Amino acid sequence: MIDQRLLPETFTVVSYRSHLEVARAITDMVVRGAPAIGAAAAFGLALAGFESRAQTAGELFSDLQSAAITLKAARPTAVNLAWAVERILQSAARFPGSSADEMRAFVLSEAQQLADEDVEVNKRMAAHGAELIADGDTIVHHCNTGALATVDWGTALGVIRMAWEQGKKIHVLVDETRPRLQGARLTAWELEQYGIPYEIISDNMSGYFMRAGKVQKVLFGADRITANGDVANKIGTYMLALAANDNGIPAYSVAPTSTIDLSLAHGGLIPIEERNPAEVLDIQLAGERVTPRNAKARNPAFDVTPHRLITGIVTENGVAYPPFEQSLRKMMNAK
Amino acid sequence: MIDQRLLPETFTVVSYRSHLEVARAITDMVVRGAPAIGAAAAFGLALAGFESRAQTAGELFSDLQSAAITLKAARPTAVNLAWAVERILQSAARFPGSSADEMRAFVLSEAQQLADEDVEVNKRMAAHGAELIADGDTIVHHCNTGALATVDWGTALGVIRMAWEQGKKIHVLVDETRPRLQGARLTAWELEQYGIPYEIISDNMSGYFMRAGKVQKVLFGADRITANGDVANKIGTYMLALAANDNGIPAYSVAPTSTIDLSLAHGGLIPIEERNPAEVLDIQLAGERVTPRNAKARNPAFDVTPHRLITGIVTENGVAYPPFEQSLRKMMNAK
Repeated sequence: MIDQRLLPETFTVVSYRSHLEVARAITDMVVRGAPAIGAAAAFGLALAGFESRAQTAGELFSDLQSAAITLKAARPTAVNLAWAVERILQSAARFPGSSADEMRAFVLSEAQQLADEDVEVNKRMAAHGAELIADGDTIVHHCNTGALATVDWGTALGVIRMAWEQGKKIHVLVDETRPRLQGARLTAWELEQYGIPYEIISDNMSGYFMRAGKVQKVLFGADRITANGDVANKIGTYMLALAANDNGIPAYSVAPTSTIDLSLAHGGLIPIEERNPAEVLDIQLAGERVTPRNAKARNPAFDVTPHRLITGIVTENGVAYPPFEQSLRKMMNAK
Repeated sequence: MIDQRLLPETFTVVSYRSHLEVARAITDMVVRGAPAIGAAAAFGLALAGFESRAQTAGELFSDLQSAAITLKAARPTAVNLAWAVERILQSAARFPGSSADEMRAFVLSEAQQLADEDVEVNKRMAAHGAELIADGDTIVHHCNTGALATVDWGTALGVIRMAWEQGKKIHVLVDETRPRLQGARLTAWELEQYGIPYEIISDNMSGYFMRAGKVQKVLFGADRITANGDVANKIGTYMLALAANDNGIPAYSVAPTSTIDLSLAHGGLIPIEERNPAEVLDIQLAGERVTPRNAKARNPAFDVTPHRLITGIVTENGVAYPPFEQSLRKMMNAK
C-alpha cells in the first residue's frame, strides 16, 4: 500500500507480510479512509490465512476468526473495517471444501473481489453525485475522500472528479483538516494530479466563504452512518455542516452502503476514536514547534453530524434524502 | 514590545525608533491583538513626533497627521488601531502651546495614558465578565486575548484569569486558531504562566465537545463591533459561535468600548483583511512541509459573527445584551 503519511513529499509503496502488520498500518494511518481500510483489512485476513499452519479448512477458519478480531480492533469508528472483515469471514464460513490451501486461495480471491467491487461502487456513487453538481459550483470538501481513501476513484472527491470529467467548471475549497491535514496533504495532491482548480483553507474559514456567497455545495465522506441518517465522519464535519445549514447550502455525505450501519439507531451510539494528543501538539511553523513544552491536548478523530444538517447521502444505489429511516433502507436493498 | 512571533520558544523584547518600524511591526504581527496594536500605534505616533524636524507645534501636527495615515493603514479590521491613533491626534489638535518640543512630550504622555487606561479598562471588563463564569465551567476560548493581546491583563482571557483568581475551578479548551496558531502558541503559554488548566484542541473540534455536553461557556474577543452587535473577530469565530448556538451554550464577546464602531450599521461593512496564503501553506508536521509545492490557499484573517449568535458583549462598562442597538450605545455613554 501507499504510505499516506509521507505524501505529498514522498511516494512510497510498502508491503506487509502479516495481518498484525496490516492492523498496525491501519492504526498508524499508513492507510486511511473508510473504504481503503476495509479493503486493507480484507487482504490482512487473506494474509492471516497464509500465516496459519492449519492443516484443514476447519482449523484455518478458527485462525481467521482470531485474526478478524485483531483487524476489526485496529480502528473503532469506520464501520467499513468491520463490514469488510465480516464479509470475508462469512464467505470463508460458507467455503464448501476441507482443504486448507484451497480455503487460503478462496479467501484471497474474496478479498480481491471486495477490492474490485469498491472501485465499481465508487464510480456508481460518483455518477449519482455528479448529477447534483452544477457548472460553476464552488465546493467545500473536508478531509481526503479520493483514490487514496478508497481502493480507487473516491467517494466525495470521486463526485468532484466525475463532475470535472463531465466538463463542469468547478472550484474546490479544500479544508486542510486538522490535525492530520489530510486535506492539505492528500486532497490537494490528488487535485493537482487531476488538474482540478482548488485552494486550501483552514477548517475555520469555510463559514466565512459561505457567508460571502462564494460556496454552492459542501461534500464529505462518512465513516459510519446510522439508521436515522446521522453521519460519523472526520472531526470538523459537524461544524462544517452547521455552517452550510446556516447559509442554506446543500451538504452531502458520499459513502457506499457498506458505511451504513442499520444496527445503530442514532449517531450517539457510534464509538468515537480519540487519538494521541501529539497529533495536535506536534505542529510546526517555520521549523519551530509552536506549543509549550508541557502543553496538553485532546484529539477526537471523528464527530457525528446530526441528520437534520444532512441534505442527502449519495450511495452507489442512488441519493438518499430525508426521512433517512426509509431512504437508507431502500438504498441497502437496492443492490 | 515582545516579539509575539517567536513565542513560546523564545521571549524577545524588541525596540523600534520610528513610526514606520512600528507600522511594519503591526502589519507583520510582531504585535497583535486589537487593544495591543492600538497602544502600539499610539506610541508609534509619539515616535513620529520625535522623528519630525518641525520647529513649531503647527508644523509638528502636520507631520503627526501624515504618520497617522501610515499607522492606521497597518491593519484594516481592528478599529482600536484607528481609534487609538485618532484619539492621540485629537488630543494633539487641542494642544494649547506653540512649542514643538512641548507638543512632542504631550503626545508621548497621551500615548502613555492610553496604555495605562487599557490595563484599567481590561480589569473592569474582567470583573464584569467573571460574574458570568460559574465554578466548574469548561470554557472554549478562541485566538489569544490575554496580556499579550492587550497592554496587560487581557479581554476574554482576562475574564478567565479573573474567574480563576476568584477561586472558581475552571478548565479551558484552547482553540489552536489556525493559521497563525495564536491559541496553541500564545494562549497556552499564558495559561501555563497563570497555572490555569487547559487542553489545546483543533478549531474544528469544539463542536464535538459541545455536543458531548462538556462545554458551559464560549469566550472570544473582538476586533470591531458594529452598531447592531455584529462582531468581527479572528477567523473561525463565526463557526465557533454557530456551534455554541446549536448547543444552547452562551457565547460572549469581550471587548473594550474602543472596539465598538457605531459608525457602521452592520458587520457586512467591516473591511476584512486577507493575508498572505503562505500563512496557511507553510505548515509542517514532523519537520516536513505538508502541502504540495504549487498549492494555492486563501487566508481571510477575520470573519463576522452575526449578532443573533452573540449572547452578550462584555465591556468595561458592563455587559450589553440584545437588542444591541440600544445596549451598545448605553455602554458607550456610561463612562
